[in-house]
Amino acid sequence: MTSLQHVNPRVSGIRVSAHSTLQSLAAHITQQIMTGAQKPFKEVLDVSSGDPHKTGMKPISFVRQLMKDNSLPLDVRLRAQRLLEICDGQSVGAYSATSGLLHVRQSIAEFVMRRDDGVPSYAEDIFISSGSQRALMVVIKLLDKGGETQTGVLTPVPSPHHLPIILDETGVTPAPYQLIEDHGWAVHPEELHRALTAARRRCEPRAVYISNPGNPTGHVQDRKSIEEVIRFAAAERLLLLVDEVQQDSVHGHSREFISYKKVLFEMGKQYSDTVELVSFHSLSNACMGECGQRAGYMEVVNMDPEVMLFADTVLCADISTPVIGQLALDLMVGPPKPGDPSWDTHTQEILLIRTTLSQNAQRAQQFFNSLPGMSCQSVMGGIYLYPRLHLPSEITEQAKVLEVEADVLYSRRLLEEEGVLIGAGGTTDSYHLRFCILVPPHTLEEVLARISSFHLRLWADIRTLTEV
Amino acid sequence: MTSLQHVNPRVSGIRVSAHSTLQSLAAHITQQIMTGAQKPFKEVLDVSSGDPHKTGMKPISFVRQLMKDNSLPLDVRLRAQRLLEICDGQSVGAYSATSGLLHVRQSIAEFVMRRDDGVPSYAEDIFISSGSQRALMVVIKLLDKGGETQTGVLTPVPSPHHLPIILDETGVTPAPYQLIEDHGWAVHPEELHRALTAARRRCEPRAVYISNPGNPTGHVQDRKSIEEVIRFAAAERLLLLVDEVQQDSVHGHSREFISYKKVLFEMGKQYSDTVELVSFHSLSNACMGECGQRAGYMEVVNMDPEVMLFADTVLCADISTPVIGQLALDLMVGPPKPGDPSWDTHTQEILLIRTTLSQNAQRAQQFFNSLPGMSCQSVMGGIYLYPRLHLPSEITEQAKVLEVEADVLYSRRLLEEEGVLIGAGGTTDSYHLRFCILVPPHTLEEVLARISSFHLRLWADIRTLTEV
Repeated sequence: MTSLQHVNPRVSGIRVSAHSTLQSLAAHITQQIMTGAQKPFKEVLDVSSGDPHKTGMKPISFVRQLMKDNSLPLDVRLRAQRLLEICDGQSVGAYSATSGLLHVRQSIAEFVMRRDDGVPSYAEDIFISSGSQRALMVVIKLLDKGGETQTGVLTPVPSPHHLPIILDETGVTPAPYQLIEDHGWAVHPEELHRALTAARRRCEPRAVYISNPGNPTGHVQDRKSIEEVIRFAAAERLLLLVDEVQQDSVHGHSREFISYKKVLFEMGKQYSDTVELVSFHSLSNACMGECGQRAGYMEVVNMDPEVMLFADTVLCADISTPVIGQLALDLMVGPPKPGDPSWDTHTQEILLIRTTLSQNAQRAQQFFNSLPGMSCQSVMGGIYLYPRLHLPSEITEQAKVLEVEADVLYSRRLLEEEGVLIGAGGTTDSYHLRFCILVPPHTLEEVLARISSFHLRLWADIRTLTEV
Repeated sequence: MTSLQHVNPRVSGIRVSAHSTLQSLAAHITQQIMTGAQKPFKEVLDVSSGDPHKTGMKPISFVRQLMKDNSLPLDVRLRAQRLLEICDGQSVGAYSATSGLLHVRQSIAEFVMRRDDGVPSYAEDIFISSGSQRALMVVIKLLDKGGETQTGVLTPVPSPHHLPIILDETGVTPAPYQLIEDHGWAVHPEELHRALTAARRRCEPRAVYISNPGNPTGHVQDRKSIEEVIRFAAAERLLLLVDEVQQDSVHGHSREFISYKKVLFEMGKQYSDTVELVSFHSLSNACMGECGQRAGYMEVVNMDPEVMLFADTVLCADISTPVIGQLALDLMVGPPKPGDPSWDTHTQEILLIRTTLSQNAQRAQQFFNSLPGMSCQSVMGGIYLYPRLHLPSEITEQAKVLEVEADVLYSRRLLEEEGVLIGAGGTTDSYHLRFCILVPPHTLEEVLARISSFHLRLWADIRTLTEV
């Protein structure tokens, strides 16, 4: 990633159109006017693209009435007005720039600086996209060198369930490293080294993907663990792809979220000037949970500016990230302040979600550890539990006959018999369930009761079989 | 596209996860419950994925207050309520199914049937995506066979300015066919044949892309012309990719919009049972113009069901189309009815947009035809004019020195000197501008005044030069 020649030739082969060159010039001229340059005109009129709201065509009321309200707290109305003002044509129906609304990118950079105790962050390093997975897809596309040698990415086992699809679609080889269950699903540097050496026999690994807080493991790395990973990436010249989407939901008592970027910058210039890092965050995180709005972003650190241009090129195929989602991102990174009319409500809602998450985690973890043939590591953050199933041979044999993984078979029967959909699979040599704990407490209790009923019935059946 | 073995191996290589198999089963069970099947539970509880609104977690008020209102016309409130009910967890913040909300897909199918005078349309053939371009990208990805032989798509010259980027990114070869300017930018079958023969020397053409109403030409095909293209596609076994995004904005007096699908079905079973067709439509069209919401759809006809499954697989990488955009699609295909409180306002707004478009088209066309060195074909629909620049050799020589296309040079100087951004380029042997006419009339007048000022100054300069 440090030089242009390594960018996916299919990406660098995308021709920059005359249209986008003209658009850049128009943006430049607008910028000049805003900073006081004298021109024979006061504003640039854009009639080059079919974006009617931008040029002032009035949006259809029937759609818009669903999205406006005059009976709201003052700070909400002011915020809505300010956010609309940053949209072209003051309309959420107008396209935004490819990498997102500049105002929102600036808000995100300020949020990152506050979060990281002043480590600098710049709007031009922030790329807004239709969700963090889309941003990841962009980087993976850039990484892929094409040609004979397969490009590889070190990926955790277990991993977020969407990761394999993204790698498959881009044709990049996953190079699995195992998270250590007995150590609460920690990342071990020896295991990263082992995985890298093994991967080099079949591909050219160019990046390491980390999920922290861990999806689905619930592990949260401490500073020492993050330093180890950074040193590994530095020594092996790997790009760090850090999924920090659940950064707002650390609920263990003994851990806090520390960003990879903050640790990187505190390790000194030897690291902070050289290690390439991309951090992903999302509107679909625990507290906001606005999954259907489709917005997220990545911040890139130490990426070659020429390569960054290509990130823009790939995002360009998406045309624009949904504008309402971008505005919601602005709210996520800039919540109401003390004294604002909405502060009380907002703070209570966030607190309620965090409390629910923390209590649900404890409750569900105790529940799984109380069942025969189940065990569950302590979780420190994120929105998943990943309990282990110690299945008797009767079940694993039955699964073999049916040609499914035994944990998938367990989930299928649970779904059919009790109507609970729980994720399964993801590791090859042991059996686990993937359980999202961010549900209302009464739903959690209902789910646990159904699981209990199914699980104990299954275990009783097996005992009967064994005794016969 | 008629058989599975031809699908892009990178797409067919995407592994279906255990998770998505379980999700399908959960959907099936839910369907069974809804149709009266007796189960030991009344609903499926989903704790497999991190989608808190779906399971009933309350969305953060600060975001949602921007989107609700109780002071609206009754039909708007009822519609909002009904639309929210079809969302998981009654929240636009919950993910939707990969191919879109089933209710909206059904609404679209009903709209298509009404539009096409009863030609059947089915929700399962409708794929909702983050804009029509994204749907096109999905089909192009499926088409690409990989391997040694390049896959080709016949593409019009001029074409929508986004088309080359999509083809470049997927590595599919454009095989250009020329629209006939002197015939009002018509599609000529002889030219399609010529382009196909030429293309076969360097790639394997598998589809023909049509833009109707034409972007940027403003041409609207009549029934005879559509029949010719369909016969061509049938004879050459090409997939028809029809961009019908501007179907609601035919403003010429002598034309109406007829869909390719309707014509196909009226040509008899010999065609309607065999010709593969994909039609694209978008929320970013003329009347709605909700570009920043990112929603569109495609309807597929005669596509192998197994291939359609892969369309779902590719869309799966996007996780979900923005839900608010999908709800706006529902409004687009199901506008208020006579008698509804919103009917008057809505009908007037649509009429105003259509009138503006039609008057702007006439006004701008006359304007361009009145300028020296400019000519403009009559437009019948769409939101663009595509006037031709007959540039004197002084300008084309200067462009050669500066190594840009002469029309791009013209646009650049217009932008720098008068602050008007107008599209340029797109054809190789003549010079054109790409002008979006869907702007408020006073903006149009301002733009035309600036163009006039620039253009006449340029022409006067050249005359002076020539006389000296």
